[in-house]
Amino acid sequence: MFGGFAQSGTEPKPASPIYGVAIPDAYRQWELIAPALEREPLNELRAVVGNKTALAAYRAVTLPFPDGAVLVKLAWKHIQSPEFESALVPGMATTVQVMVKDSKRYAATGGWGFGRFVDGKPVDQAQHETCWGCHEALVKNHDYVFTRLAP
Amino acid sequence: MFGGFAQSGTEPKPASPIYGVAIPDAYRQWELIAPALEREPLNELRAVVGNKTALAAYRAVTLPFPDGAVLVKLAWKHIQSPEFESALVPGMATTVQVMVKDSKRYAATGGWGFGRFVDGKPVDQAQHETCWGCHEALVKNHDYVFTRLAP
Repeated sequence: MFGGFAQSGTEPKPASPIYGVAIPDAYRQWELIAPALEREPLNELRAVVGNKTALAAYRAVTLPFPDGAVLVKLAWKHIQSPEFESALVPGMATTVQVMVKDSKRYAATGGWGFGRFVDGKPVDQAQHETCWGCHEALVKNHDYVFTRLAP
Repeated sequence: MFGGFAQSGTEPKPASPIYGVAIPDAYRQWELIAPALEREPLNELRAVVGNKTALAAYRAVTLPFPDGAVLVKLAWKHIQSPEFESALVPGMATTVQVMVKDSKRYAATGGWGFGRFVDGKPVDQAQHETCWGCHEALVKNHDYVFTRLAP
């Protein structure tokens, strides 16, 4: 009880360096866009979910994504299923990664703000400096978003 | 216009042999339980989603699942991401598989009814005869459900 930010039991949510992006509330209930597998060196299963604005844009097949679209990528180390020989399943959670579309606030980075979190805490500025360059270089033709809506 | 089942533009949804399980409405908006990868010979990415009853049971860590719990597994052939060398992403959709808990109706199969669909149509009876034996043999200790809630 030394003051600080806590008030009425709520604390400001930790936000990413550079972009000020926080983990959205209730994203775990958002709709699945697609799963993916990351091979070596990460060896992860991933799932990207999106808010209603993002899913509406995917379904309308319109680009760029509108302001307010938010994507969250969940990631886990993959492990051998103990019960089914041919299956890899989620093990330990690793990162939660967020993209927020705000074409004015993030005009310098294609309209997207980025956040990468481990255990709910944003990783350092150096890691956040890597987001935009890769998205810009590899998926400019899909509004800088890798993930497509799984059919 | 030869009669049949069509009425007011609605048709009865095709249901699985043996179990009479149909694909639930709006399952694509259900919450993600976990992704998975199926290696050879299927080479699929999978994602299991569940209705609110199923997710509440997962979060409460109570077994068996209550009546009304429904799980749906989406599956896609995995393909190489054209944009990110280390990623496998969803290609063609393959099966949609459904488990419905109704402890009275499906008392003979652990309380679960099964449905496997390709292009929205249930596969044949022979395929449906394989569901229960595998679930019974391999995941009896998890109420016959393979998928765990990803952390």
